[in-house]
Amino acid sequence: MERIITLITDFGLKDNYVGVMKGVIVQISPKTRIIDITHGLTKHDVLEASYILKCSYKYFPKQTIHLVVVDPGVGSSRQGIIVESKDGYYFVSPDNGVLSYISPSKIIRIEDERFFLHPVSNTFHGRDIFSPVAAHIANGTSILEFGPEIKEMVKLQEIVPDVSPKAIVGEVIYIDHFGNLITNIAKEGFPWENVTIEVKGSRIKRISQSYAENQDRELLAIFGSGGHLEVSVNKGSAKDFLQAKKGDKVIVRVKR
Amino acid sequence: MERIITLITDFGLKDNYVGVMKGVIVQISPKTRIIDITHGLTKHDVLEASYILKCSYKYFPKQTIHLVVVDPGVGSSRQGIIVESKDGYYFVSPDNGVLSYISPSKIIRIEDERFFLHPVSNTFHGRDIFSPVAAHIANGTSILEFGPEIKEMVKLQEIVPDVSPKAIVGEVIYIDHFGNLITNIAKEGFPWENVTIEVKGSRIKRISQSYAENQDRELLAIFGSGGHLEVSVNKGSAKDFLQAKKGDKVIVRVKR
Amino acid sequence: MERIITLITDFGLKDNYVGVMKGVIVQISPKTRIIDITHGLTKHDVLEASYILKCSYKYFPKQTIHLVVVDPGVGSSRQGIIVESKDGYYFVSPDNGVLSYISPSKIIRIEDERFFLHPVSNTFHGRDIFSPVAAHIANGTSILEFGPEIKEMVKLQEIVPDVSPKAIVGEVIYIDHFGNLITNIAKEGFPWENVTIEVKGSRIKRISQSYAENQDRELLAIFGSGGHLEVSVNKGSAKDFLQAKKGDKVIVRVKR
Repeated sequence: MERIITLITDFGLKDNYVGVMKGVIVQISPKTRIIDITHGLTKHDVLEASYILKCSYKYFPKQTIHLVVVDPGVGSSRQGIIVESKDGYYFVSPDNGVLSYISPSKIIRIEDERFFLHPVSNTFHGRDIFSPVAAHIANGTSILEFGPEIKEMVKLQEIVPDVSPKAIVGEVIYIDHFGNLITNIAKEGFPWENVTIEVKGSRIKRISQSYAENQDRELLAIFGSGGHLEVSVNKGSAKDFLQAKKGDKVIVRVKR
Repeated sequence: MERIITLITDFGLKDNYVGVMKGVIVQISPKTRIIDITHGLTKHDVLEASYILKCSYKYFPKQTIHLVVVDPGVGSSRQGIIVESKDGYYFVSPDNGVLSYISPSKIIRIEDERFFLHPVSNTFHGRDIFSPVAAHIANGTSILEFGPEIKEMVKLQEIVPDVSPKAIVGEVIYIDHFGNLITNIAKEGFPWENVTIEVKGSRIKRISQSYAENQDRELLAIFGSGGHLEVSVNKGSAKDFLQAKKGDKVIVRVKR
Repeated sequence: MERIITLITDFGLKDNYVGVMKGVIVQISPKTRIIDITHGLTKHDVLEASYILKCSYKYFPKQTIHLVVVDPGVGSSRQGIIVESKDGYYFVSPDNGVLSYISPSKIIRIEDERFFLHPVSNTFHGRDIFSPVAAHIANGTSILEFGPEIKEMVKLQEIVPDVSPKAIVGEVIYIDHFGNLITNIAKEGFPWENVTIEVKGSRIKRISQSYAENQDRELLAIFGSGGHLEVSVNKGSAKDFLQAKKGDKVIVRVKR
């Protein structure tokens, strides 16, 4: 079977960093297909990366290896990990919380230097450690070969909102290219009726089913394609309209 | 035969939207080759997309499936279509004018939900409708399977200039990365002799054959690689030089 | 063997230029794998391109064809060349210095128009000359077929610093996405002990081995993943911190 490796990084597309990772992968595993998910993440923003991974990984075939390199701690003592998820995917990343939304069935700490590119730089583990490890997994090497199994990985607190009987207090965790404000409030368990959404002093009085049911330039709330509550403006940018930024609070008040 | 699907969108490369579309395609059609044409189009600019498609699609092998998702009306009543062109290519897109430059031999309205990803979101038909439809075409499904044949598709008026005996009145429909101002004035039927080009108060007295035959920083007019009249600055940006924007008039006056 | 063509350009990702080059390649050589190294180089900056190529090309398998199109002189009399390097790679580019860091075993001037796309435009040799030539090489055409062997290619002076017994006077030749200032001072022969680095009025008193051994927001000097001396800020941007730009002098003073 032809394996797939996807790439999620904050490297941008100006430099050669992503291209070099692909070179390393094809040298080790010439038949593997490489698909970019994104390289445009905010630099060093692990929370954003965890969200993007959550709403991307399941659209790929089972057995796909998702390589996530957002790594503010490169060269420090943070570990690299391989995770096999309960739903049949593989993940290779620094152990810094980027996999917070994933349910692991197995976590391996990456230790065996036989699989690294040498000399290992202190500035580019994406090239020297994570890419070759992913390529060797694609070649069929058991993940147990790369190091010891561990019980825990780093998990971010911000991936879920604070929930009380009267309100859900969430925050903007990602702002997309269209200016949609994506929150950490997921669809599962959401109280659909009688809610008001508050954000940056504005109130939205219902959850829309589509952009088009609103007036042009109207502020609205909708569960977006990633399954999270989003604040949007029909044919406009909620980011610009509200002067919003990541971390801004989004509060769902429930009338009972 | 290995089929090719190309992608043209206004999704940008910051988000995971393009990557997710690729995941959907490879799940359905693992052998299909996916090639990005661009994801950097101006948001919701259907005219720009139609031009980019026009000057790209023929460089790919016949039978290539061009997937064009610039879709300001997502979630509204606008239809999705499949077009087979007279010159042997396939196109999948919303029916909003992005295919204005294409000569169809067959137009199919996309209706059969068997080919969609379920549940179909109201915000991301690129993922839930257009990508799976393109992937099924790549797998060899007849386009007649997807819905009824229709006679007309939406066509933009701006794709051609106003032509009179004394002048061609066109407009800037695209500005590229180098600041070249690309017009809707095509090479076919252009009166090469004795013309003056007017744009933003400047006059250009001839059509150049190459940038290099002009002085550095000199304003010039040239038929660009896409076959349309462009206003350029040698080793500079006509956009910056003229403070130009899309929609600006470009007038070709003919002395007889 | 499946051949690889990599792409390095200054075309950006807004336009369709890169996508069209890929279409041309797959038409001629359907089995070739195409990998983007970068399209985000500073427009017309041949020195930057030469550095990016230097620190990328070896990460790909031998026989890889690296296509480098940064071409301020398109349409002028500058030549196109094919280079086979001593270490077993192929390069296709304008002869303008982009291959300055490569050690050629053979240099061919591209002349045989049988391999071009016709008509050849005066504005887009990437599409009409360089892509088809690379695709034909990928198909196994001997490079001797494309034109006469020549002895010299254009070489940039700035690829190496000025070296004297007391100082190395280099300059910033590239600034990456993270704001790291990359110089033309390479690792080979560097005097590791007793050095001070001066840049924009600041002094750095040692060479770091990793970012993490420094304080957050501290200015540091390190040999980066490309093997060149870089001036960086731990978890910050040296570009912003120093208001630096390409061409800025970086001086290494040696105490003896």
